Amino acid sequence: MIMKNAAVLGASGYTGAEAVRLILGHPKLKLKAMTAHSRAGEAYADVFRNFAGQALPPLTTLDEGDWDEIDVVFACLPHGASQETIAKIYDKVETIIDLSADFRLTDPELYAKTYGRPHDFKAFLKTRVYGLTEFARDQLLGAKLVACPGCYPTCSMLALLPGLESGLIDPAQIIIDAKSGVTGAGRKATLAFAYSETSDGAQAYAIGTHRHAPEMDQAIKDFANQTTSVRFTPHLLPMNRGMIATCHVTLKDGASLSDLRKHYAETYGAETFVHLLDEGQVPQTRHVRGSNHCQIGIFGDRTPNSAVIVSVIDNLTKGSSGQAIQNYNAVQGWDETLGLQSVGVFP
Amino acid sequence: MIMKNAAVLGASGYTGAEAVRLILGHPKLKLKAMTAHSRAGEAYADVFRNFAGQALPPLTTLDEGDWDEIDVVFACLPHGASQETIAKIYDKVETIIDLSADFRLTDPELYAKTYGRPHDFKAFLKTRVYGLTEFARDQLLGAKLVACPGCYPTCSMLALLPGLESGLIDPAQIIIDAKSGVTGAGRKATLAFAYSETSDGAQAYAIGTHRHAPEMDQAIKDFANQTTSVRFTPHLLPMNRGMIATCHVTLKDGASLSDLRKHYAETYGAETFVHLLDEGQVPQTRHVRGSNHCQIGIFGDRTPNSAVIVSVIDNLTKGSSGQAIQNYNAVQGWDETLGLQSVGVFP
Amino acid sequence: MIMKNAAVLGASGYTGAEAVRLILGHPKLKLKAMTAHSRAGEAYADVFRNFAGQALPPLTTLDEGDWDEIDVVFACLPHGASQETIAKIYDKVETIIDLSADFRLTDPELYAKTYGRPHDFKAFLKTRVYGLTEFARDQLLGAKLVACPGCYPTCSMLALLPGLESGLIDPAQIIIDAKSGVTGAGRKATLAFAYSETSDGAQAYAIGTHRHAPEMDQAIKDFANQTTSVRFTPHLLPMNRGMIATCHVTLKDGASLSDLRKHYAETYGAETFVHLLDEGQVPQTRHVRGSNHCQIGIFGDRTPNSAVIVSVIDNLTKGSSGQAIQNYNAVQGWDETLGLQSVGVFP
Amino acid sequence: MIMKNAAVLGASGYTGAEAVRLILGHPKLKLKAMTAHSRAGEAYADVFRNFAGQALPPLTTLDEGDWDEIDVVFACLPHGASQETIAKIYDKVETIIDLSADFRLTDPELYAKTYGRPHDFKAFLKTRVYGLTEFARDQLLGAKLVACPGCYPTCSMLALLPGLESGLIDPAQIIIDAKSGVTGAGRKATLAFAYSETSDGAQAYAIGTHRHAPEMDQAIKDFANQTTSVRFTPHLLPMNRGMIATCHVTLKDGASLSDLRKHYAETYGAETFVHLLDEGQVPQTRHVRGSNHCQIGIFGDRTPNSAVIVSVIDNLTKGSSGQAIQNYNAVQGWDETLGLQSVGVFP
Repeated sequence: MIMKNAAVLGASGYTGAEAVRLILGHPKLKLKAMTAHSRAGEAYADVFRNFAGQALPPLTTLDEGDWDEIDVVFACLPHGASQETIAKIYDKVETIIDLSADFRLTDPELYAKTYGRPHDFKAFLKTRVYGLTEFARDQLLGAKLVACPGCYPTCSMLALLPGLESGLIDPAQIIIDAKSGVTGAGRKATLAFAYSETSDGAQAYAIGTHRHAPEMDQAIKDFANQTTSVRFTPHLLPMNRGMIATCHVTLKDGASLSDLRKHYAETYGAETFVHLLDEGQVPQTRHVRGSNHCQIGIFGDRTPNSAVIVSVIDNLTKGSSGQAIQNYNAVQGWDETLGLQSVGVFP
Repeated sequence: MIMKNAAVLGASGYTGAEAVRLILGHPKLKLKAMTAHSRAGEAYADVFRNFAGQALPPLTTLDEGDWDEIDVVFACLPHGASQETIAKIYDKVETIIDLSADFRLTDPELYAKTYGRPHDFKAFLKTRVYGLTEFARDQLLGAKLVACPGCYPTCSMLALLPGLESGLIDPAQIIIDAKSGVTGAGRKATLAFAYSETSDGAQAYAIGTHRHAPEMDQAIKDFANQTTSVRFTPHLLPMNRGMIATCHVTLKDGASLSDLRKHYAETYGAETFVHLLDEGQVPQTRHVRGSNHCQIGIFGDRTPNSAVIVSVIDNLTKGSSGQAIQNYNAVQGWDETLGLQSVGVFP
Repeated sequence: MIMKNAAVLGASGYTGAEAVRLILGHPKLKLKAMTAHSRAGEAYADVFRNFAGQALPPLTTLDEGDWDEIDVVFACLPHGASQETIAKIYDKVETIIDLSADFRLTDPELYAKTYGRPHDFKAFLKTRVYGLTEFARDQLLGAKLVACPGCYPTCSMLALLPGLESGLIDPAQIIIDAKSGVTGAGRKATLAFAYSETSDGAQAYAIGTHRHAPEMDQAIKDFANQTTSVRFTPHLLPMNRGMIATCHVTLKDGASLSDLRKHYAETYGAETFVHLLDEGQVPQTRHVRGSNHCQIGIFGDRTPNSAVIVSVIDNLTKGSSGQAIQNYNAVQGWDETLGLQSVGVFP
Repeated sequence: MIMKNAAVLGASGYTGAEAVRLILGHPKLKLKAMTAHSRAGEAYADVFRNFAGQALPPLTTLDEGDWDEIDVVFACLPHGASQETIAKIYDKVETIIDLSADFRLTDPELYAKTYGRPHDFKAFLKTRVYGLTEFARDQLLGAKLVACPGCYPTCSMLALLPGLESGLIDPAQIIIDAKSGVTGAGRKATLAFAYSETSDGAQAYAIGTHRHAPEMDQAIKDFANQTTSVRFTPHLLPMNRGMIATCHVTLKDGASLSDLRKHYAETYGAETFVHLLDEGQVPQTRHVRGSNHCQIGIFGDRTPNSAVIVSVIDNLTKGSSGQAIQNYNAVQGWDETLGLQSVGVFP
């Protein structure tokens, strides 16, 4: 069997650790390098104790790596740092799967406005593939640079795109009320994410201003050819992993809830990772914990033509590192489920 | 000081225990009786260990009680059982504060449809007062029977009513995405609310069908004179106490966000328990934990005229037993904050 | 590759679901049957939603199964029911891995006293193998019936046996202060394990009377040839999975802490699943979550010759279904890590 | 009624906020000043949102305060900073209740060794009262400077002192296996206490080296006249508030479990805040949450003369600010329960 040599950049963060975990279970990937700016030189098990006893490459700086022997890089870096790093190794490696926000938005002006800094590698934006896997397979095959979607866009777009591209849902009236576990904030020593400040309570944040909203508008334009501004309110919940997008939508005149259900059933019927639940079944984040799965439920609301589409994922897996692996499988033309077969770890 | 003798019916449930806790700290209430159908004869500290060492009346059945010596009854019973019980003691006690759903809806047909059983005491529906305290003070003074609002209606109406009665918010476009802690489900041995099935995850439930939705329509009609059907999706979160209502609304033409903020500031400026937070401050349920307070934030969303009003309460306190006490204070014409001065227990 | 046909009895419980999850990822096992007395006829994804989309055999009663085609049965039944069921299919299947308590104690009198019912299949007690894998490999190879240890004995014995069999630890002075996540209580609608009764707090239970204590005495006798009565206090913690055994021990005269560390390092140096952490590193249950790993730390305490050995496992994996799979791997003489390679799912 | 003017130093920490919360509910205390080095000038509700809407004095630096008008200072500062600050205002205020570790140990050499810095105000050590209230009432009356015990010593000594001073328990064999909620770590932006690193898991820490151990030895010497070195292992649990001390002890020859229970019942029979539970009842931290109560259970273990005494408190209340208020009540000769009547907030 041909193995591909993989590297994880930014292995000291949560998405990095999740990428490492998944690569170790992938039958065609060999983990050859890991970087972590601030933790270079440490044993990985000292950074993430769950890897105690595993044979792993050393944590290095970027410069210490031998990038010519790497086939695929999973870049788990903060935006800004990601584009700079990727530019340095772009010509040395075969494929780059970027988990940051740096290559998601195709319009560099929108990027600059959204992320508060200019984009320095605009040329890449023309060739990169936006890896919402289920909707981007054709473009992914053989791609050089893949921009993995944000966790909220992944969760929300899987819920909304079939309804939008089919014209069943009104693009002008989309309200996404989403909720995330705390790992979505990354591995940081921040008071706002301390246990005592985050447990046993809930809150909204970044109402109307979250950076993932323009990305969702773009995905709706690109995949469903509709122009819109989604209304988007994220929340922080006292759970580790897990994300739920509760999408409040309006059916277009003439469209029925059963039309909607039928179309989603067709769209996702052959998918391994996206499941339309039976009528009445409510998605729960805990059922996809630690897995690359997404579960979707469709419900009518109390006013005519109103509906609610609920989608759940694990923000670190399907919302990040799992989809990254899935994307690389698609780049290679492999079975997309390689390394991702695990069902949710429940309870 | 004149003391009133209080009884708690259904003291073995969570709202009952919260009522007992608050009555013990109330300077003008003396707890004289507690009933608990299934636990009669047990020491209360064996039902709720947090009361160990407290001098408390015995747990009895309804029939064992001497109701003539009781001034006020806090009925913390399930709907159905509540109306039957209240009918039995109605003439014996001065005031009845009902925490169940039995007297919330004024239309007995709507009650029957919503709760799946006929209403057997329709006459009470004409005289009872719906105790959303901040909006019902005039009616509460001297009332005989008070129906305390449901937890979701309390949280949501405090967020929405000022905007609706002022005509700033469009009543036809109200989406309430609400989230509750698990205590809202009551004290029951149910698999769905077991720790391992409820912790570290989130889910929606009763989408478009929750019994509190018609109650909210009625409150909007009664307090803001608007006819509407709110779109309402509740969620279950891994926390004990706490409720957050994220209300997605549309401003009417000509109304601005600052109009809205200004009107809420005026409406609640003199209130002890309802606080409009400063611009940019996001309400968190944990800040009102164990208290009768409600915190509200107002935010603009991404499309013109769209706004988000977020409200948080403790579902067992302001959402239930705390508001019940507050209502009785209002019935008596006492300072509404008696027995309720505690700020949120944070962290 | 030769595949073995596996069945899971009692698939509607948590250990059953964990067995199913692990079997699905095992390269040499094919899941052919699942039983669940009370849920027979239901789709498994309706019992455990995390299996939505998986191709799985139907849930049946025991009688509906074709046991002749099954090679190995993983029995995840309550004690009592387990022995009866196993007796029925004993001659039909090649290997039985029992996760219940029914075959752990070799003395039927002790079983009767501990579990409050007579043992009806005493003959099996003479031939069964007690599957504390790391200490029972020789006996496991080719075994017909394996009794998997309880979760507390697994966690505690991995911490204590090397010190006891080497004579470094005094067997007369063993205090095990253990803590378990709530899944250890099984999938039951019990008020004591409701979210609101179990979250955000801690408690001890079954102090001095837990059924796993005699099993630990027996393991110490069998594997370390020491007679003792361990002092054992379990606790219930607000977490799903995870178990920690804090073992307070006394070194024998002449034994030093470094002797102890050295001996554990030798004992477990070649093990895949048991890791002695470096000096000063403290085991955390979350690092082994969802995995078959055990992490152990050794510490000195404040008085001469006193030491603390801390061991963590996932109670559903190494403490139950993971070790069951590991045991079957050992029965077959396969690589013990087949199907169990995943590291802990952290965070 | 004579009111005393109170100040809280270090009001931006958790014990500071708990002190403020309790003072607001105290009938004889008026909160006149609050300091917070790093947050001076901010509104307190911006530091702790649960105080929104409360009329509170401004947050100032120490120098900005008018200490002559203050009767009692509750010092909620880190050790080191506390002694320096207290020295500055010692002569200006009537009473100082110190919640830090600075005046707990009477031996300055032991302080220096334990806290890694010299003690600069040794004279105070001779006159200060160690405020384990139930055992120090006589000394507390009229005291100038009170050192409040640490949370672990409070929880553990309430469990152990009656057994030790009566001679029923062997002082040479005391093992305290204690567990704390995360608020015990203070309000800090530290990765180790981030939600994702702390939730859904458990761990021990500071085994054999925790700073509260020498304090416990001293308390046993001072209150029970026994010389010992307790073996002490603390744990960090995924809960906000709450502490449980599981004390593994050995009865002296001739002492029985019923002697022990009887003696504790006598010792604590008249206490408001310390409750010996009935035989078989297991203390749970959640039942004392937010309150000044301590619940204690006594159990036999499996070997002759072995017993387990379990004690639970809220680490921020009885373990810190609640006991501080109780101590001031004792200093004044007031009813000790003033401001502390609330039962545990459960659930």
